[in-house]
Amino acid sequence: MRICISQLNPTIGAIGANTQKIIHEIALAKKEKATLIIFPEMAIPGYMPDDLLLYTPFIDRIEQALNEIITHTTSIAVIVGLPRRSENILNKALCNSAAVIMNGKLLGFQDKALLPTYDVFDERRYFRPAPQEKIWEIGGKRIGITICEDIWPNSGVAGQEHYPVDPLAVFEKEKPDLLINISASPYSEGKIETRKEVAKACVKRLHCPMILCNQVGGQDGLLFDGTSVVFSKEGELLQQAMSFAQDHLLFDLDQSTPITPVTEKGAPELFYALVMGLHDYFVKQGFTKAVLGLSGGIDSSLVACIAVQALGKENVLGVLLPSRYTSTQSTEDALAVASNLSVNTMEVSIENPYQALLDNLHSLFNGQDHGVVAENIQARVRGTLLMAISNKEGYLLLNTSNKSELAMGYTTLYGDSCGSISVIGDLLKCQVYDIANWVMKTTGWIPPRILEKEPTAELRHNQKDSDTLPEYSILDPIIEASVVEMKSAEDIATQLSLPLPFVLDIIQKIHAAEYKRRQCPFQLRVSDKAFSVGRRVPIVEKSLFSTPPGAYFRAIQ
Amino acid sequence: MRICISQLNPTIGAIGANTQKIIHEIALAKKEKATLIIFPEMAIPGYMPDDLLLYTPFIDRIEQALNEIITHTTSIAVIVGLPRRSENILNKALCNSAAVIMNGKLLGFQDKALLPTYDVFDERRYFRPAPQEKIWEIGGKRIGITICEDIWPNSGVAGQEHYPVDPLAVFEKEKPDLLINISASPYSEGKIETRKEVAKACVKRLHCPMILCNQVGGQDGLLFDGTSVVFSKEGELLQQAMSFAQDHLLFDLDQSTPITPVTEKGAPELFYALVMGLHDYFVKQGFTKAVLGLSGGIDSSLVACIAVQALGKENVLGVLLPSRYTSTQSTEDALAVASNLSVNTMEVSIENPYQALLDNLHSLFNGQDHGVVAENIQARVRGTLLMAISNKEGYLLLNTSNKSELAMGYTTLYGDSCGSISVIGDLLKCQVYDIANWVMKTTGWIPPRILEKEPTAELRHNQKDSDTLPEYSILDPIIEASVVEMKSAEDIATQLSLPLPFVLDIIQKIHAAEYKRRQCPFQLRVSDKAFSVGRRVPIVEKSLFSTPPGAYFRAIQ
Repeated sequence: MRICISQLNPTIGAIGANTQKIIHEIALAKKEKATLIIFPEMAIPGYMPDDLLLYTPFIDRIEQALNEIITHTTSIAVIVGLPRRSENILNKALCNSAAVIMNGKLLGFQDKALLPTYDVFDERRYFRPAPQEKIWEIGGKRIGITICEDIWPNSGVAGQEHYPVDPLAVFEKEKPDLLINISASPYSEGKIETRKEVAKACVKRLHCPMILCNQVGGQDGLLFDGTSVVFSKEGELLQQAMSFAQDHLLFDLDQSTPITPVTEKGAPELFYALVMGLHDYFVKQGFTKAVLGLSGGIDSSLVACIAVQALGKENVLGVLLPSRYTSTQSTEDALAVASNLSVNTMEVSIENPYQALLDNLHSLFNGQDHGVVAENIQARVRGTLLMAISNKEGYLLLNTSNKSELAMGYTTLYGDSCGSISVIGDLLKCQVYDIANWVMKTTGWIPPRILEKEPTAELRHNQKDSDTLPEYSILDPIIEASVVEMKSAEDIATQLSLPLPFVLDIIQKIHAAEYKRRQCPFQLRVSDKAFSVGRRVPIVEKSLFSTPPGAYFRAIQ
Repeated sequence: MRICISQLNPTIGAIGANTQKIIHEIALAKKEKATLIIFPEMAIPGYMPDDLLLYTPFIDRIEQALNEIITHTTSIAVIVGLPRRSENILNKALCNSAAVIMNGKLLGFQDKALLPTYDVFDERRYFRPAPQEKIWEIGGKRIGITICEDIWPNSGVAGQEHYPVDPLAVFEKEKPDLLINISASPYSEGKIETRKEVAKACVKRLHCPMILCNQVGGQDGLLFDGTSVVFSKEGELLQQAMSFAQDHLLFDLDQSTPITPVTEKGAPELFYALVMGLHDYFVKQGFTKAVLGLSGGIDSSLVACIAVQALGKENVLGVLLPSRYTSTQSTEDALAVASNLSVNTMEVSIENPYQALLDNLHSLFNGQDHGVVAENIQARVRGTLLMAISNKEGYLLLNTSNKSELAMGYTTLYGDSCGSISVIGDLLKCQVYDIANWVMKTTGWIPPRILEKEPTAELRHNQKDSDTLPEYSILDPIIEASVVEMKSAEDIATQLSLPLPFVLDIIQKIHAAEYKRRQCPFQLRVSDKAFSVGRRVPIVEKSLFSTPPGAYFRAIQ
């Protein structure tokens, strides 16, 4: 049986364009004499349209698109994901579904049974669960169809939620010849291997081969790696599609032999995930050019490398924004990165506007030290200059903050927090070093001394991040344990052998910076918990405060 | 039977403080010889803690708080809302529950059956539904307990979601002597009357008296009006607690007589809702003082009035930020409002920093007209100056944008979009006029000519909002129909007798401004759909675009 897996990169809501891609892929598969072509979960609107699903015309248009696709299915079977209106008006009106089409006819729908409603998922907001699982006859084979989450909780691998039903139980009895899973399973570090383990656990349980067709591409901050796979009934990997790229697998299920894919975990995997996310945000919005501030520090240097890889060197403009506190080395390092990447630069001093602002605020300070207020003004002058360039040229501004800074609120709102997209805002500072190190070794784009110097914001003389923050090697594991793993302060203190009051102070600062993060650009998600997606905490909440947060607020904003 | 309704205003996560309030209220009720005291849904942690519920120590502390409350319940019964660990580990681990306590003993829990997962609600993210409804014996009466949503869908009044179960069906059979509903039912315009209709429909169905105890207070952008009520079995209103204030009702259920509450709908209701929301945001965060830019326009004038009412005139600082484009009338009007409100003002010109920024960007413009880029720079200089004052003095900056501007992206990111809280960001411009008119007539705080002049951003000579936007009387109904009522462009065009391409253009602009709104401060919600809570749409989505949004983006940011 010849099967095609079409690992598509849809654009959310672009029903017309996505449908044309689907029809094009069907035509290719027909040429190749495939019996069946499989598309990802929600391929027609893209995953996830969120509240667009609540607009009646949006669902109407998806129905029209399905009807158009059906007219292109003579002599082939198609499985394609979409939201559909449920006949059952009780509970939610929609199902997250797979349309099963053969020879110009809609055979029916397999709805999703398990609707994830945790972390980045809100499916209970829109959908009702499948009433039942069925077996479908295609090309002489008895096929079971599942959708993403359906195979996760009972795999024993990584289920986040317990459900009262088990969609695989039906298939255990029915013994299908093939299990298909269409997914929109987002990427996070380590997820590619975990997802393959889940598929293997399925195969082990059902003793049949399995195909997992996953969405690829960046959708705002949520990144989908693709990496669609095929396993034999013995649990051997027979096929694996590319990660972080649209792909198309064509194979004969009964004649495939095991493969060993080349994998690059760690730094390169994260780098390519971010490249895809940045690329897709630009392309899907219709932008080509980016601008960013180059400070000569490691964060903006890494973002420049990602931007060049994603958009091309001719589409990236680096802006140097020196002040009285900018060292010669910083300027040299910024220019070296730009030169290594062959990107254009411009230099705009912040001195005069900065001084003019201080002068106008003279009565406010009344002879007092300007302190952190003046530091914030510098950052905001930089933000204003970068946004002026962005507005004038139509270049999108890239934000260069990292997750450690976002966690601690170590950023100036409307200053270095500016930007359309936070490229490395889900990377802890230690991860920024790891990836920059890999980039340096692989490409030479980043000069070694950028990795060697101490982190500084250069907002006053001889300033170091470590004046305000603990060393990143101490800070980052606390952020990871608290934000991502959701551990208690007590457990973190024990695990990391740190004093409890110190850990509590860090966690309190993470909570206190919530109001700031709400006004920061969304981050490209590569961890199990990014700040801008999958984490929902109130701004005003006192679960950790014995004293009002006012004092800290003034110090950091 | 003497009953106390304690309409509390909890702070999210302040388990210790909320518990002390609860214990204090129990002591008062005991003194008054009450048989039963009732607290709102989730009274112990406050509604809604969101992902704090996922931290184990958070639930541990709530269990401890419950145990402490129980020790204060000799000779009284208590019904109090809290999240609790479910014995049933399938599905979610928590229930949204009412603890039923009597004479120092926990009788048990009544869990919530219907878990709203739409609009501003995410309860399926955290909770599993109640397995059953029970009858509780308290003070010789057979009592049914429900939680918020449990009574809504089957009332025939305003259910947003259809559920497969009906928790009132059990009570229809069991015929309790009294139905209690503990709620955290958020305010929106008209909601107070709707909620009372829902309660009356319940009474009509069950033929028993009913008590609804609702949370009050502002929780970030979500406002709870309180307005707890008691209905007789004939559907007569017997008691009504205050709206927008903590309150405490003590009454003998069998001896109450019908009342007719004084209600002030429309402008005053909205005004007091916003006053409460602003007040609570400050008090719960531990801040007392606010700063805002006073332009002499209607938006900042109204925000100043709300701020004075919420925080006191001594806690509000108005800042005038004139430029070469600021008219004498604007300055006079700004000073008149400040004088009427007796708030301090300071004046800081934006001219020198604005000119310094333009000078530094000279090479960028290369003799071209500065256009909208220069307008944005002015707005950002104002933002930077206001934030410097905020940082220096520890005053929170109030944002003064309205919903019409937010909808259209008619705001400069990092400029007039700055602020900790958007006070009137859920009011359409026409509503701003209504409320300002009421304030003017009631208090004289706003000079009439502020209401009479044409809206202008004063970012260039003779600029008017209507140069860029349609008249607000035309624009606002489109925004309402699209964003709040979620109608299609076709339906809106028909309903408002407008050309479809014009309506589509407006809706397209609303979609295109989504990335901006994500970086704006949260808004105090008074409509059925505020941008910052209850509405979830992707940034990158092409459901309405035939052309890339790039062109529009440049024009407005």
